[in-house]
Amino acid sequence: MTNLTVVFLGTGGSWPTPQRNLPAIGIKFGSEVLLFDCGEGTQRQIMQTSLSFMKISKIFITHFHGDHFLGLPGLIQSMALNDRSQPLHIYGPKGIEDLVSRLVSLGYFGLTYDIHANEVKDGDILEFKKYRIRVLRADHTVPALAYVFEERERRGKFDRRKAIALGVPEGPLFGKLQRGECIEVHGRIIRPEDVLGPPRKGRKIVYSGDTRPLESIAEASKDADLLIHDSTLASDLSDTAHEFGHSTAKEAAIIAKKAKARMLALFHISPRYAEDDEVLEKEAREVFENVFVARDFMELDIRYQN
Amino acid sequence: MTNLTVVFLGTGGSWPTPQRNLPAIGIKFGSEVLLFDCGEGTQRQIMQTSLSFMKISKIFITHFHGDHFLGLPGLIQSMALNDRSQPLHIYGPKGIEDLVSRLVSLGYFGLTYDIHANEVKDGDILEFKKYRIRVLRADHTVPALAYVFEERERRGKFDRRKAIALGVPEGPLFGKLQRGECIEVHGRIIRPEDVLGPPRKGRKIVYSGDTRPLESIAEASKDADLLIHDSTLASDLSDTAHEFGHSTAKEAAIIAKKAKARMLALFHISPRYAEDDEVLEKEAREVFENVFVARDFMELDIRYQN
Repeated sequence: MTNLTVVFLGTGGSWPTPQRNLPAIGIKFGSEVLLFDCGEGTQRQIMQTSLSFMKISKIFITHFHGDHFLGLPGLIQSMALNDRSQPLHIYGPKGIEDLVSRLVSLGYFGLTYDIHANEVKDGDILEFKKYRIRVLRADHTVPALAYVFEERERRGKFDRRKAIALGVPEGPLFGKLQRGECIEVHGRIIRPEDVLGPPRKGRKIVYSGDTRPLESIAEASKDADLLIHDSTLASDLSDTAHEFGHSTAKEAAIIAKKAKARMLALFHISPRYAEDDEVLEKEAREVFENVFVARDFMELDIRYQN
Repeated sequence: MTNLTVVFLGTGGSWPTPQRNLPAIGIKFGSEVLLFDCGEGTQRQIMQTSLSFMKISKIFITHFHGDHFLGLPGLIQSMALNDRSQPLHIYGPKGIEDLVSRLVSLGYFGLTYDIHANEVKDGDILEFKKYRIRVLRADHTVPALAYVFEERERRGKFDRRKAIALGVPEGPLFGKLQRGECIEVHGRIIRPEDVLGPPRKGRKIVYSGDTRPLESIAEASKDADLLIHDSTLASDLSDTAHEFGHSTAKEAAIIAKKAKARMLALFHISPRYAEDDEVLEKEAREVFENVFVARDFMELDIRYQN
C-alpha cells in the first residue's frame, strides 16, 4: 500500500493572517509530492511540515489570482539554489506558460533544472503511473480550475480460502498471486483472477480551488475520500461570496452531501475569521456531518475504505 | 521627540528557514513606516509585529536577488485589496521601474493607488521632511546598494538658566522658544538661538544590504546608532563569503569598529546557522562589543545619544 497524506500548507485566502497562510496543499503519495496552488510563503510552510520541497514533482495551479501562485518564484529559486536537477512540471489554466516564463525571469537568477509548464482545461485527464489527475472547470471571477486526484484501481482482495481450495500451499505462492503473477500448482496454472476479488477503487481527493458551488464538482467528487472545498464565508455573507466567486461553508457542505464524500475540509477561509472560524464548521455540520475547518499544518492520512 | 523603531521582519538569506524569513527591515518613524528589502512572506511577518503594512510609505530595495524582493507583489496586492489610496514609492537600483511594472502585471489584479518606482544610485541623497536617505554602492555579485537613514538635525538643548537670566518667565513662553519661535518679553525680542545650544545630530541607521566589507560603508556609518550589516557566514567560510559577495561576522564587526557605530546587528544569516547562530555573535564580539545577531520580530527603539 502506498501512503497517501494530505498536508494543508496554507488554508486562508486573499491575504495572509498570523493564523493562516495563503492557499497551498501538498499531497504526498509514496515518495512523490504534488503541490496544489502555491501562495506566497509556501516554501517556508513546507519547511515546517514532514514534506520536502525538493521532492515536489508537479504543481497544479487553479487560477491566476496572486494569493494562489505568488509563492512559485521563490520556491523555484530555492530549488535551484539547492541544486535541483530533475524537471519540474507545472500545470494550470491557459496562460500558465507565459506566467511561468515571467516568474523565472524576475531578477538575477539561473535555473539548474527544466520547468515544463502545461496548459490544462476542463475535461482533461492527466494519466500517471499510479494515479490520474482530472481537470474540471471551476466557477470563479476569472478562469479557474478544480483538480481531482485519483489513485489507480487496486487489485481485488485475495481470497485465501479459495486459494487453499485450489490446492495452493500457504507461503510465497500466496504473495505471487497477490502481486498479480500466475503460478503453477501440480501442473495446473492458477491465475490471479482465480483468487482475487473485483478490482477495488483507489483513493480520491478533490480540490475545488476558488469557486461558486457547482453540480459538476459534486459529480466529480462522488465517493471522494476527501473534498477540499472553497468555504470563504459564512451564509450571512452569501451575497459577498457570490459577488467574489466564492462558496459559503453551507454551500460547500451541500456539495459534499450530494457527492457522498467521506470527509469535507473547509478551505480558503477569509481573513475575517482569523480569530474565530467555528461559525463555518457549525453551519456546514448542519448539512454534512464529517466536516472540519482546514488549518495550516494539518496532516491527514488517507486510508483505504475497502 | 519622534519615536524611531527598527523592526526586524526577516533576518535570513537565500532561502527561508523555520527560524528566519527572508530579508526585510521596517523602520517606524513617527506614524510612517519605511521598508528596506521585501523578501517573500514579508507581508505576513509585518502582521505579526506592531507595524501596519498599510502605513508603509516607501520601500527601498537593495538588489534584485529574489530573496530581497519577491515579497513585493503580494504586499502590493494586499494593499490594493485593502483599498489603499495613498501612493507608494519604491526605490532601487537601475531596473527598478521595469521590475515593478513586471510585478504588478502578474496575474489578474487591479491597483487602487499609484506606485512610483524610482531608480537611485551611489551618492544620491533623498531629502524628506524629517529625514534623508543616503544611497551607497554595495559590493555584491550583482549591482547592489546600501542605504543610510538619517534623521534631520534637531534643535539644540534649551538653556533654562539663560532664559531665566534674559527675563523669560517660566511657562508657555519656554515652550515657544523650544519650538523655535521668537517671543517678546518687556518689549524685547528673544530669539530661539539666544537660549538653545548648537543643533544636535539626528539618529542614524545604516543597512548594508548584501555586500563584501567596504571602507565606504564604514565611513558612511560613522557614529551610526545602528549598523545592520551582511553577516552571512562565519570566518571559517570566508572564501565562500567572498565568492558569493557576502561578509563574515568578523568582517561586519571590523566595519562597525571603524565606524565607531553604537550598535551592530548581524544580518542575512545563512540557513546553515538555523539551529545555532552563536558562532557568529562570538566571533564578532571579539572585535566589536556591542553586537547582536538579528532575529525575526526583534523590535529596537533607537533613542537619542545626546
